Amino acid sequence: MAIAEFVQKSLGNWRSHRSVHHLAFGHLEEVNSTIEIVTLNVDDPLVISLCKEHNIDPQLAQSPFRMSWEGESDWDEDEELKGTTVLVPIPDPQNPQQGKLLRDRGYAETMTAIAHYHLTEDGTFVLLTNYDRAAAEEKIWFVNPNLRFRISMIKTSDGKGVTTASFSSEIRSLST
Amino acid sequence: MAIAEFVQKSLGNWRSHRSVHHLAFGHLEEVNSTIEIVTLNVDDPLVISLCKEHNIDPQLAQSPFRMSWEGESDWDEDEELKGTTVLVPIPDPQNPQQGKLLRDRGYAETMTAIAHYHLTEDGTFVLLTNYDRAAAEEKIWFVNPNLRFRISMIKTSDGKGVTTASFSSEIRSLST
Repeated sequence: MAIAEFVQKSLGNWRSHRSVHHLAFGHLEEVNSTIEIVTLNVDDPLVISLCKEHNIDPQLAQSPFRMSWEGESDWDEDEELKGTTVLVPIPDPQNPQQGKLLRDRGYAETMTAIAHYHLTEDGTFVLLTNYDRAAAEEKIWFVNPNLRFRISMIKTSDGKGVTTASFSSEIRSLST
Repeated sequence: MAIAEFVQKSLGNWRSHRSVHHLAFGHLEEVNSTIEIVTLNVDDPLVISLCKEHNIDPQLAQSPFRMSWEGESDWDEDEELKGTTVLVPIPDPQNPQQGKLLRDRGYAETMTAIAHYHLTEDGTFVLLTNYDRAAAEEKIWFVNPNLRFRISMIKTSDGKGVTTASFSSEIRSLST
């Protein structure tokens, strides 16, 4: 599976249930959210500016998309979890099973980020992001066209410790 | 990694936090438990009788172990989750990365079961069990020697639908 197929399968509206295990505190957090994933044109000004910001030729962009989410956590019910981000895959010309993923705002940080992705033989999308003081590893796979799972880990920057691990089940919303 | 190494890494006491997503009901359940995994001798009478029950030569058994657990769920606090089971790997003589796993009581059913396992290139242990009216798929992997993750899915027997998915983070207890 190449990135274009993975993005194509991801388009649409999803209801996400996320269980977050804060390993350091032994605390469990539940997050319910809706996620919308829509395709963007490769010549969208947001896509082009994000590529330029990272000195990447916008011609290399493939299947860019926008992801928006809105939800709430049982940890802090007053906090509104809401956001939107532009994501731009840049497949490796030598190996289209892997590449960079640009995004204009990360989940964990409020700055642009370059992540590295690869697709495994069994169709799992694996995303690795290095931040200043942490690293994130995310795996997303489809059980069937209307159900996908996501595992996320936040690691210490040396990659040895795991501070947070979460599991999301995402069910396609057939109504919009 | 072969099964002997996987079992060796699993020995000990673990604190498990399990988030269960009951997809059909949209219900989330949290289970906290302790797990103890101890090695058994290949000539243990329990190992030999389990092999014989399945018409398998006990000489083929490798790294048998006992798993015991005790915990509680936030769904039904009166229900005591407690059990112990003997597990006997029978590696495939042609391909030691895969084989059968015999157990004297399953997690989901109160009968003996034969499951099929394989170890992936990245060291994930994958276990598939067919029951009468359902199938279970479980993946277990080590993030580091003291932290392992487990994903379980209960599928409908045709393998298409998923009724339950769960994520466990298991942290080694250094005290016993």
